[in-house]
Amino acid sequence: MSLLESTIKKIVPQDADVRFRARARLEQLTMPHWALGRLMDLAEELAGMTGSLMPPVSRKTVVTMAGDHGIAASGVSKYPQEVTVQMVYNFVQGGAGINALAKLVGAKVVVVDMGVAGDLGELVKSGKIISKRVGAGTSNMVTGPAMSKNEAIRSLEGGIEVALELMPSTDIFGTGDMGIGNTSPSAAIIAVFSGSPVSEIVGRGTGIDDGQLVHKIAMIEQALEMNRPDPKDVLDILAKVGGFEIGGIAGLILGAAYRRRPILVDGFISTAGALIAARLAPAAREYMIASHRSMERGHQIALDCLGKKPLLDLDMRLGEGTGAALSMNLVEAAVRILTEVATFAEAAVSKADK
Amino acid sequence: MSLLESTIKKIVPQDADVRFRARARLEQLTMPHWALGRLMDLAEELAGMTGSLMPPVSRKTVVTMAGDHGIAASGVSKYPQEVTVQMVYNFVQGGAGINALAKLVGAKVVVVDMGVAGDLGELVKSGKIISKRVGAGTSNMVTGPAMSKNEAIRSLEGGIEVALELMPSTDIFGTGDMGIGNTSPSAAIIAVFSGSPVSEIVGRGTGIDDGQLVHKIAMIEQALEMNRPDPKDVLDILAKVGGFEIGGIAGLILGAAYRRRPILVDGFISTAGALIAARLAPAAREYMIASHRSMERGHQIALDCLGKKPLLDLDMRLGEGTGAALSMNLVEAAVRILTEVATFAEAAVSKADK
Repeated sequence: MSLLESTIKKIVPQDADVRFRARARLEQLTMPHWALGRLMDLAEELAGMTGSLMPPVSRKTVVTMAGDHGIAASGVSKYPQEVTVQMVYNFVQGGAGINALAKLVGAKVVVVDMGVAGDLGELVKSGKIISKRVGAGTSNMVTGPAMSKNEAIRSLEGGIEVALELMPSTDIFGTGDMGIGNTSPSAAIIAVFSGSPVSEIVGRGTGIDDGQLVHKIAMIEQALEMNRPDPKDVLDILAKVGGFEIGGIAGLILGAAYRRRPILVDGFISTAGALIAARLAPAAREYMIASHRSMERGHQIALDCLGKKPLLDLDMRLGEGTGAALSMNLVEAAVRILTEVATFAEAAVSKADK
Repeated sequence: MSLLESTIKKIVPQDADVRFRARARLEQLTMPHWALGRLMDLAEELAGMTGSLMPPVSRKTVVTMAGDHGIAASGVSKYPQEVTVQMVYNFVQGGAGINALAKLVGAKVVVVDMGVAGDLGELVKSGKIISKRVGAGTSNMVTGPAMSKNEAIRSLEGGIEVALELMPSTDIFGTGDMGIGNTSPSAAIIAVFSGSPVSEIVGRGTGIDDGQLVHKIAMIEQALEMNRPDPKDVLDILAKVGGFEIGGIAGLILGAAYRRRPILVDGFISTAGALIAARLAPAAREYMIASHRSMERGHQIALDCLGKKPLLDLDMRLGEGTGAALSMNLVEAAVRILTEVATFAEAAVSKADK
């Protein structure tokens, strides 16, 4: 059996008994019933995911997956393709948004080359990034499939391998992405999964203007028309209109779910990856936490499709894992509520009249 | 001049020059323009408030103001009045929601007796809480004014004094409240400020049922009818339909604004206090940050009235300062973005094509 198949097979649902016991405790805390709302929902989820009434979440890792995209040649982004590699250097030097936010919440940032167009060999050799490189960027999906089915599987297995390698030092994962042009394959994937028109999903990415937006929509529509991905065949979708880092994100989620680790899904690109993971292994959904709602237009459609409500909604649209990192504090807050707040009996506080 | 008058007089607007310079740096960070959205808005605000490009926010204090309410005798709450005192003991013992969340973000919790109905003398003597006690709970506003105008001023000045006492060890404040029945005066205050019908503002507080909600609305309408607070006279509003801890919260905000410290406004009760502070000193608004949107029905109306958009929206309705504490991590995130993320020039990353 392949790594992908064996991983998918071993993903089990949350522990219903521990969830039940967590809920019973949360209902007895010294506060009006469920008065901390979604933090309490999250605490219950975390107990179910980890199978523990004291869910471990202190060792945090944000995995930022980098990849390039053939469609960048079709003028869908405001930035040149070399920015992908430059930003990887920025991550390694600690100067990017994800570095600041991960440091704040005590998370490690692990950068993975899933397939950028430039050379990152030096950073791989010096151990500063991990390589699960599938190729030098995808092909342009406007004129043919982005990658072969075999490459799609390799990208998924690369993500699973990263999860397994980081597992011994990680209680909770966050997903992240970097790749000029990657809102385009993400929009295409979300269009296939949701059935919504491309024009309702495509957004401004790094900040294109009205004319560029019309062009971007046309390019993605052309890519879908040219490739006709089979909505029932998730590997076909990933291969034809996906990206190496999107496959990597999906694989990371599968690996985390297999080992019952909660995983915070970042924004637009990560949610496209999460949709792929959820289709491959429906139980993997039970380990996903939607970290935030991105400003990118189609993100709400993607979240609806995934069936998840995000924790934060702060008009962010950076990717890199910034939303995942920022929400790690909320996850920790949820655990603290479950483990540190006294019950009515413990604190000798009078209960409600009825 | 009284402490209240002199404090109000010394509150100045944000520093426009520092704001401008913060914005200029944020626009050069290695990310698409303003891609961290509201965190960047917040960073700009914090620079303006503190007059610094490295806004200090590490020393955090949540002030939880406790007070009792005569209207509790009219059956507006699900919990008996003694819970106010019991919860103060729970705060001191570290077993409440606010303790868990404040500890997580590295904030100190300071509890203030603004006027509870029970005896907290022991905790005051042992230095575990501060006393700015105005009285043993307010009078029942259903049958007359909640307090005298002099008591209203004392509650405000008590809050200012707390701010000044904590100032040497505090970079950023959070407001909080505890007081059985205190959603009722808060709803009354918000009704007067917003002009919205009481029935659209009153919520379920600690969790009353439909019948109790109808009764609560009737009681608050009766209180407003009986007292007829003058919408143009903020001290009249606080005295007739307010509360000691609500005055204390307003005073705390004024004291923080006078010393240019950012202050995170918690939920429904705290926003009622913030409305009073903003009416007393419009420039104080520039130091307020709305931490979260409470589940309590009229909170959105109150936030609209204050002109603030909350950072978090997690179906919380506990008070105590829990929303303020939870959002302190977002404030710190905003500062990290301003101070730790590299600019395009610093990181040698290519800028957008145009």
